[in-house]
Amino acid sequence: MEYGTLQERVRCKSLLSKVMKAEDTIPFFKDGMSLGWSGFTPAGYPKAVPIALADHVEKNNLQGKLRFNVFTGASVGAETEDRWATLDMIDRRWPYQTGKNIAAGINEGRIRMGDKHLSLFAQDLGYGFYTKDTPGGRLDLAIIEVSAITEEGGLVPTSSGGVIPEIVTMCDRIIVEVNVGQPSFEGMHDNLICNNPPNRQVLNITKADSRIGTTFVPCDPAKIVAVVESRHRDNGRAFSEQDETSEAIANHIIDFFSHEVKAGRLPKNLLPLQSGVGSIANAVIGGLAKGPFADLSVYTEVLQDTMLDLIDSGKLACASSCSLSLSKDEGFPRFFAAMDKYAGKILLRPLAISNAPEPIRRLGVIAMNTPVEIDIYAHANSTLVGGTRMINGIGGSGDFLRNGFLKIMHTPSSRPSKTDPTGITCVVPHCSHIDHTEHDLDCVVTEQGLADLRGLAPKERARRIIEKCAHPDYKPILAEYLEIATKECLARKVGHEPQLWDRAFKMQLNLAQNGTMKIKNWDMKIDLCE
Amino acid sequence: MEYGTLQERVRCKSLLSKVMKAEDTIPFFKDGMSLGWSGFTPAGYPKAVPIALADHVEKNNLQGKLRFNVFTGASVGAETEDRWATLDMIDRRWPYQTGKNIAAGINEGRIRMGDKHLSLFAQDLGYGFYTKDTPGGRLDLAIIEVSAITEEGGLVPTSSGGVIPEIVTMCDRIIVEVNVGQPSFEGMHDNLICNNPPNRQVLNITKADSRIGTTFVPCDPAKIVAVVESRHRDNGRAFSEQDETSEAIANHIIDFFSHEVKAGRLPKNLLPLQSGVGSIANAVIGGLAKGPFADLSVYTEVLQDTMLDLIDSGKLACASSCSLSLSKDEGFPRFFAAMDKYAGKILLRPLAISNAPEPIRRLGVIAMNTPVEIDIYAHANSTLVGGTRMINGIGGSGDFLRNGFLKIMHTPSSRPSKTDPTGITCVVPHCSHIDHTEHDLDCVVTEQGLADLRGLAPKERARRIIEKCAHPDYKPILAEYLEIATKECLARKVGHEPQLWDRAFKMQLNLAQNGTMKIKNWDMKIDLCE
Repeated sequence: MEYGTLQERVRCKSLLSKVMKAEDTIPFFKDGMSLGWSGFTPAGYPKAVPIALADHVEKNNLQGKLRFNVFTGASVGAETEDRWATLDMIDRRWPYQTGKNIAAGINEGRIRMGDKHLSLFAQDLGYGFYTKDTPGGRLDLAIIEVSAITEEGGLVPTSSGGVIPEIVTMCDRIIVEVNVGQPSFEGMHDNLICNNPPNRQVLNITKADSRIGTTFVPCDPAKIVAVVESRHRDNGRAFSEQDETSEAIANHIIDFFSHEVKAGRLPKNLLPLQSGVGSIANAVIGGLAKGPFADLSVYTEVLQDTMLDLIDSGKLACASSCSLSLSKDEGFPRFFAAMDKYAGKILLRPLAISNAPEPIRRLGVIAMNTPVEIDIYAHANSTLVGGTRMINGIGGSGDFLRNGFLKIMHTPSSRPSKTDPTGITCVVPHCSHIDHTEHDLDCVVTEQGLADLRGLAPKERARRIIEKCAHPDYKPILAEYLEIATKECLARKVGHEPQLWDRAFKMQLNLAQNGTMKIKNWDMKIDLCE
Repeated sequence: MEYGTLQERVRCKSLLSKVMKAEDTIPFFKDGMSLGWSGFTPAGYPKAVPIALADHVEKNNLQGKLRFNVFTGASVGAETEDRWATLDMIDRRWPYQTGKNIAAGINEGRIRMGDKHLSLFAQDLGYGFYTKDTPGGRLDLAIIEVSAITEEGGLVPTSSGGVIPEIVTMCDRIIVEVNVGQPSFEGMHDNLICNNPPNRQVLNITKADSRIGTTFVPCDPAKIVAVVESRHRDNGRAFSEQDETSEAIANHIIDFFSHEVKAGRLPKNLLPLQSGVGSIANAVIGGLAKGPFADLSVYTEVLQDTMLDLIDSGKLACASSCSLSLSKDEGFPRFFAAMDKYAGKILLRPLAISNAPEPIRRLGVIAMNTPVEIDIYAHANSTLVGGTRMINGIGGSGDFLRNGFLKIMHTPSSRPSKTDPTGITCVVPHCSHIDHTEHDLDCVVTEQGLADLRGLAPKERARRIIEKCAHPDYKPILAEYLEIATKECLARKVGHEPQLWDRAFKMQLNLAQNGTMKIKNWDMKIDLCE
């Protein structure tokens, strides 16, 4: 299939002299460099050059001798950075990532990962906070995938906005990959290079699809050191089939929306929706495609496959996102086959705008995300299993949950341990890691039910969450903890939010020791050995 | 001293028929009502009516028979709500509060307190989230202190903006206290009633002193059920004398600012400053009055006494705040004595705008706040001593720390326990309560030093915080914990952010058992009793 030539896509003709093969860019890379990559939750990331460099390292046994600091929008495809991790090519990695080998590198102490709210990551990168210790305080080299280059050198992104504006600002040497292996995304983007304070602009977005910028990212052509043709497609994750748990959660949420519309607190077409990544998010969007609401809008960071169903249903007015994260074998072919229809409903923005608190609060986004675990007072752990092992990162969950109109977290009530199908409760007395605090969440949802926490004090929240959301196997255990903790703390006059620090993690310790969080009692003997 | 008569202050003449004495408003109050109060960190709150009602309860032995849900901007004077707490007149209390008796009520389980980020509190109140279970979904009654009422009924606030716009929107029966015991604040305010999404307005603030609204809060005069004259002054907290610890912290921060200006990451006049409440905040602002920077601006929620020093120094261009929280005996007399000079530099805004993420991010505010404790990975506890006992609340610390350009927390490195002058370390392995997460903070400062955490991964952050910020007595203890935890977690390949859940709270348990957090070793014997 032909989607136009490199010569057609590169409209700034002086740059044609910079065209080279991916392998010819290898001399640009030096050990220890800080790199900026385009891309976001694997869409729109560079492929040809990272793969060529990985091949070079592998072929010449350079493992551990060419290591980089990688700054990108969020996760990128496994064939690039996860392979780089395998080849020991990553020293520092900011922010959210996915991939078995990169996670192993992080949790075994070989890769230094920084986990930041994506909106903060974008601005901190632009403020020079991550490059403050490098000479000149700049990124050393960038690799950016584009659909086209405009007459003046403007970069037209592909399937994601990412942190391209900040990279272009902070880097003087840019390798551009022109992806001619797919149709051009020109026209779908709304880009703005945010100035640094005190001159940061007003983001004048008053509807999900308000345009405030340009379809390209302005770039001085003198910064472009290489132009490489690429025909690689995004390696998007496959669509998760909806399961009963996800569907039950989606139904609870849709019932809640109906209730809020009836009470006059939500308009009939709801408010712009943000929905995270994964099977529950997919089920919620899928449920809305079959649900009672029309004229919906979406203001989010990632669009998954079911968003195409929502468009097909005729119920979606418009969607704004940082990336189009469709699956490689189903979503993208479906999208490209009817690109005119879909593209007209979708606006892609850079991270600094898709995730900015400003439009999220103004529009009144309904934020929905999945945590690892939640505690009885509504603190949530989104990042570290067991409080120490990094999965992916906080991503944009905080950007949306802190600033939305309604802030909702949804999770199965339990997960299997190695020996017990419900050996892990996702509702615990105290989260072992906290990414979202009790001050933020409005609703917690599991397949068991929805706990509306608005206007509740801590002990009331705990009772509501245990009653509505905990798995039946854990309800009595959690209720007993709350009762003992309340009694002991009130007796000591320290009972605003009761906890027992000798026993708060007993369920987690029992999981490690006995393979399940189902404890028989709340007894515990402790010797401080002092 | 004469500051004009009630008749002069109430320019909407039809309202003069509603003038009554404070004690005559008592019949408006019914047990169980939800009340909206003006006021913020004790400034601009109603006094005459709450005091009259407290007198009524006390005189008629109505303790526990007239209980209310109180929604206000933040803490109000002890002579009002703290006295109400003593008389068992408060059922629910949202958000931040101060006062010995109200705290006792909360921690002993008599008062239900909801702790919310102040910016979220304002919007949630306006969205009807707190009144969703009351008939009609509205506040039952409001008490608002004003300087004046305009010809059309507009309410001109006194020394704070608070949540007056949301109260006026959500309440149909308003008691107005006209404070003629002090000069009028007319002209100092910039008010805007924020529409609910999807019609929320752009907050077009591009400098700390940009005006976007009106000097009064529009109000339908038909809603006003009573007009009461008041001569009570705000009962502001006294100025804390600066101590060596606070001065050392202020010096570290000023040195850091100089370094950032030199590196080109801060302009010469810095960026708008937010500084929390308390002696460290006072010392920082006091230090800036003597420091090398000029043409400063402030975008904050509370102005304390040292702000007058900063104005006197000629170094302050302008300040935007939600309240003017000066001390009763020094700050306010000084302010009123030269009101022309000071008022011209100060703009007062409602909470929904002073604390909104939108202007805080755009302006690039430098946020500085004091936690109860901080952990080695830079999570902070701002609210609950020992993880369960409420002090005041999160206030606006999250609004500013999540959205600032630089996010700084400052604390003494240790505090005294009952038996040990440094028995409590403010740097711990794991906070017992988390209000601010590792994803937010840039710098931690104690009198020992400043840890710049930008661009550091968790284990690097931990080493930096222990090295720069911990008290010397605790450095070896914390370093040993980090070493043991790192070794054990990396061995299990779960070491992104090492913790040991059997021992993470050993220091806190030792404090309870032995009166100090100085433990002799990290041993611990645990029997799960399963």
